[in-house]
Amino acid sequence: MKTPQLLNYARDSWTPGDAASLTELPSAIDGSPVALTGSGGLDFGAMATYAREVGGPALRRMTFHERARMLKALGLAILARKEELYELNYATGCTRKDGWIDIEGGAGTLLSFSSKGRRELPDAHVLLDGQIEPLSKSGLFVGQHVFSSLQGVAVHINAFNFPVWGMLEKLAPTLLAGVPAIVKPASATAWLTEAAFKVMIEAGILPPGAVQLIVGGVGDLFDHLSGQDVVSFTGSAATALKLRTHPAIQRESVKFIAEQDSLNASVLGPDAAPGTPEFDLFVREVVNEMTVKAGQKCTAIRRALAPADHIDAVEAAIRDRLAATKVGDPRAEDTRMGALVSRAQRDSVREAVSRIVAAGARVAAGDPDASLGPDGGAFLSPLLLRTDDPWACEAAHDVEPFGPVSTVMPYRDLDDAVRLANRGRGSLVLSMFTYSPQAAREFILGAASFHGRMLVLDRTNAKDSTGHGSPLPVLTHGGPGRAGGGEEMGGIRGVTHYMQRTALQGSPAMIAAITDQYIPGGPKHVVETHPFRKRMSELTIGDTLRTASRVVSVEDIEHFAHFTGDTFYAHMDEEAAKASPIFEGRVAHGYLILSFAAGLFVDPAPGPVLANTGLENLRFLTPLYPGDSMRVELTVRSKSLKSEETGVVRWAVEIFNQKDEVVATYDLLTENVP
Amino acid sequence: MKTPQLLNYARDSWTPGDAASLTELPSAIDGSPVALTGSGGLDFGAMATYAREVGGPALRRMTFHERARMLKALGLAILARKEELYELNYATGCTRKDGWIDIEGGAGTLLSFSSKGRRELPDAHVLLDGQIEPLSKSGLFVGQHVFSSLQGVAVHINAFNFPVWGMLEKLAPTLLAGVPAIVKPASATAWLTEAAFKVMIEAGILPPGAVQLIVGGVGDLFDHLSGQDVVSFTGSAATALKLRTHPAIQRESVKFIAEQDSLNASVLGPDAAPGTPEFDLFVREVVNEMTVKAGQKCTAIRRALAPADHIDAVEAAIRDRLAATKVGDPRAEDTRMGALVSRAQRDSVREAVSRIVAAGARVAAGDPDASLGPDGGAFLSPLLLRTDDPWACEAAHDVEPFGPVSTVMPYRDLDDAVRLANRGRGSLVLSMFTYSPQAAREFILGAASFHGRMLVLDRTNAKDSTGHGSPLPVLTHGGPGRAGGGEEMGGIRGVTHYMQRTALQGSPAMIAAITDQYIPGGPKHVVETHPFRKRMSELTIGDTLRTASRVVSVEDIEHFAHFTGDTFYAHMDEEAAKASPIFEGRVAHGYLILSFAAGLFVDPAPGPVLANTGLENLRFLTPLYPGDSMRVELTVRSKSLKSEETGVVRWAVEIFNQKDEVVATYDLLTENVP
Repeated sequence: MKTPQLLNYARDSWTPGDAASLTELPSAIDGSPVALTGSGGLDFGAMATYAREVGGPALRRMTFHERARMLKALGLAILARKEELYELNYATGCTRKDGWIDIEGGAGTLLSFSSKGRRELPDAHVLLDGQIEPLSKSGLFVGQHVFSSLQGVAVHINAFNFPVWGMLEKLAPTLLAGVPAIVKPASATAWLTEAAFKVMIEAGILPPGAVQLIVGGVGDLFDHLSGQDVVSFTGSAATALKLRTHPAIQRESVKFIAEQDSLNASVLGPDAAPGTPEFDLFVREVVNEMTVKAGQKCTAIRRALAPADHIDAVEAAIRDRLAATKVGDPRAEDTRMGALVSRAQRDSVREAVSRIVAAGARVAAGDPDASLGPDGGAFLSPLLLRTDDPWACEAAHDVEPFGPVSTVMPYRDLDDAVRLANRGRGSLVLSMFTYSPQAAREFILGAASFHGRMLVLDRTNAKDSTGHGSPLPVLTHGGPGRAGGGEEMGGIRGVTHYMQRTALQGSPAMIAAITDQYIPGGPKHVVETHPFRKRMSELTIGDTLRTASRVVSVEDIEHFAHFTGDTFYAHMDEEAAKASPIFEGRVAHGYLILSFAAGLFVDPAPGPVLANTGLENLRFLTPLYPGDSMRVELTVRSKSLKSEETGVVRWAVEIFNQKDEVVATYDLLTENVP
Repeated sequence: MKTPQLLNYARDSWTPGDAASLTELPSAIDGSPVALTGSGGLDFGAMATYAREVGGPALRRMTFHERARMLKALGLAILARKEELYELNYATGCTRKDGWIDIEGGAGTLLSFSSKGRRELPDAHVLLDGQIEPLSKSGLFVGQHVFSSLQGVAVHINAFNFPVWGMLEKLAPTLLAGVPAIVKPASATAWLTEAAFKVMIEAGILPPGAVQLIVGGVGDLFDHLSGQDVVSFTGSAATALKLRTHPAIQRESVKFIAEQDSLNASVLGPDAAPGTPEFDLFVREVVNEMTVKAGQKCTAIRRALAPADHIDAVEAAIRDRLAATKVGDPRAEDTRMGALVSRAQRDSVREAVSRIVAAGARVAAGDPDASLGPDGGAFLSPLLLRTDDPWACEAAHDVEPFGPVSTVMPYRDLDDAVRLANRGRGSLVLSMFTYSPQAAREFILGAASFHGRMLVLDRTNAKDSTGHGSPLPVLTHGGPGRAGGGEEMGGIRGVTHYMQRTALQGSPAMIAAITDQYIPGGPKHVVETHPFRKRMSELTIGDTLRTASRVVSVEDIEHFAHFTGDTFYAHMDEEAAKASPIFEGRVAHGYLILSFAAGLFVDPAPGPVLANTGLENLRFLTPLYPGDSMRVELTVRSKSLKSEETGVVRWAVEIFNQKDEVVATYDLLTENVP
């Protein structure tokens, strides 16, 4: 059978690389050829221009919500054809369970960003960042930070170990931000990325130019980058260094987000002696992180730190569990750990192990040279290393065997553990197994600035835990220093990496016009029909209900106090209220004002407004004294969706007294029929 | 008189640079020597270590509020000795008015960060970022992003044009973040920086190791940087490129914040014909930006864009105003514009002007070779350039004359204006003078991702405006691409640049223990004394009042409805409420629940709680039906100060029904006696 050739997707066409550029990709299981791949002959500059001129404008015409719905459709398209992808997964050396993280985890990331996007972003083009900053006393000159979509292209350089998730965890925030992407997978597993990419294209969901694919070298692509572009890289520190020092990146201040595999640590707490649940959980997690994906995860535990008193027990327990781990053909049902991605990768792991051993560690479990699995495959037994002098064994903190390898090492006390953890010079993730809040506090505060994610596990939540090695779409992924200094995902935080923050200054009316969102002090459109009578889709930002006014009497205040039980002196005792530094006499309860406000603006009959679900940013600004009157302006501020069936309308509520002074302002949230 | 030698401040000692390293700094006014400066002989590696091992731990022991108070004291110390600084300012070429921006603007930035820090940061060591992210159904495994202080040193490389403000706008967020700094001013005006630095040291406010000063080259300092350090640079694109490509910066993923002077534009709106207020405001602002600090501002207007129809009128109006601008000795009272910082700087401006002229522009006002001011000084007349073919005149968008120079150019339509503005390849600031919200919207949306700050001015707010060229402490300062891709200030945003974001995962109890802040689901300490009887300083985070419980009857609901006027059907009509998709029958009003909750938890007598000032993040989670009962837990969540006399306590309020289901949660804000 002829070895299939992978295709690039350039300027919305499937394009083969020219013959001279082709490389044969071997199966991790037996070395047989899986695919040919290459990108020779592509016009990389034209691809970048196409993304900027065709993909960007098309994506930017959509709102955040429209793009969020697109992500959901993409995720469902992947799930609908997941079995095709699972079939292609085995040749990467991975078991079906390993593939689940990659394939379904990738689709799940699209769904998570879709959900976050609809709940936390407006149905608009610009994202407000923080509140209005008053810049003058008059209120006519204010500041508002906004995020807007970058007008460039995102170049995604992905690692071999997550051919599907690695692509999708970057595409999700990028597309949600309205930015087109060029995806460049690592060649070693590019057939699986190409297949998942093809599923997305064939689903016909994306606008033209939104995504392109390079299944080979990126040629002169970097020479064409500018300050509106973003490079997002996952892989080794060495490759990151090579890319980030490219002259165009430096000259044009191109955003460069790096997520580098790092020397992640896991720490057994000083309290977690053998026999405690935390001890067992630690041992299980170290073994799990060594064997899932054959340890080829940038988040895997490379350094297992235990109190010196328990280090022997830890070594023995890990060795026992590893002995029960079956390594072999990933297609076999009883296989717990498959192959490394390639024999070249295995060579590099063996070389790294030998450097750590040369630095003073010994092999405590496994045999680096054992011959396992089918002939021609890239199998390796899990290797537990141990050093008893971790400060002397420098390589254990600097050299990363990117495979099923971890080094156990003792610490003297918590301070020593903190310093050893930080000796990795920055990591993606650190976990600690302890039931002692004091130990967790001391350790985490000492180490937090060196680690991008930190997990504290104990007997109460181990079952709930998503594990040391799993980045989650709602949490940031990335770490300082050795880990590359980048940040990905983290919900909407990850979306803003593909946007530019701009501080707008101007009048509220101008800022409202620019952002299409209601800004306090900006224009209102007073409506005749009560807005509670309208479906969400019929409401326009800025639509305002002006209510009648009512007087608040001293009898109202007394009545409310006795009815609710809130007899705070400022409402009940004229003399005591006057003596307070902030009131001139008795004042109406804040809750009375809120309740009367609802009495003024609520339209009672059943309709598209289902319930008052919440309230935010309430501030009482001017006291309301007995005899004062109050009226309300209720303005549509923004709209978002909870699901296809229900949505949330955010109303700006302003309560005024008879002198038109603002008594209180807040955002009211209602559940509405879309 | 002997020329004084500036001193370095290294490891808490005033240290002269060795003789071989000294350079003489000339006065901008007449070229006479002002000071000798140099840093030869310093041990730069030891300075970095001292900052990390002495300054960092001392600053990190303080809370955000303690550091904020320190900033206020520093600002007041500068203001108390400002006249000494004004005296030293003239030799930089600046008028007293120019110096006001630098000296009092710098002190004001310290005060602004102090105020923001006390209002918006907790009195704690760790800053929570966003809400709890639920990661499991049980609620025992949650995520919380936190910011913690970097454990390295911040290296501040400052520009010559703001010797005081440039130092303080970087020190304010750095010190507030708990990070020590090494300040390296530009030599040309280093005497003024050294003097202001000395004021801070002599005030005795800062802990040991918090700040150091290098009045000369930085030697091998960069070789000693690591992933916990930050370099914050202000200056030219060429110098930024040289620094950011240093091998240690790249290898260690050192955070590099660059703020580069850029080709900022100002745009006269298509509506702003001669005779409109916006036309006059535009002309005044262009002239102002050309002449303040002799145009030596990274934010100055380098490109003035006007509709082709009005370009002649714009040129004439600017020329007229410039003719009335007196250039000369900055010490003279009637001087409107002083000297450039040095004759070398003047040469470089003349050279840049000649490049723009060579590209097709002409000099429309001023004479590059005019001889002005005292002999030996660096005076230059303001120079207005004009090109009628801005797309051909590339140099007008690429070459920055860092002095009193601006180029006027016509645009055809708004789209052309957007493209010309963005042709600067990224800028710090752009302003637009228009009274048309539609024009502002179209222009700003097209250009926002290229500009860090954008100002829309019109007749309503020009008097309130702080101006095109003024970065403000509460707004971000920095821009993409040509402007360096960095961000400074922006209130608390700027503080987080000196901190590491970490995603914590664990049980609420662990996260509360680590952050010293109350986390929903975390431990509470039920107290006997009512917390309303305690001063703010006597309240402990996690102190909880548990109230008695009360039943809510159908009579209560009816009574409340008729009293307030809120007769929404879900409260009044059993059948209609049942038909709603979210209720099983009539429910209590949200505002009734809030009011009864206050009745349960309020302690009525006068005391340290002065008023309920607000409420946040209210969510109604479980409906309360007639006959249900409710009780409240009120927990101290955080404390912050509004002033020395009053503070704000944030209480976590949880309302439970008789099944201990959560009916509602919110944060209650009270004004308290500290």
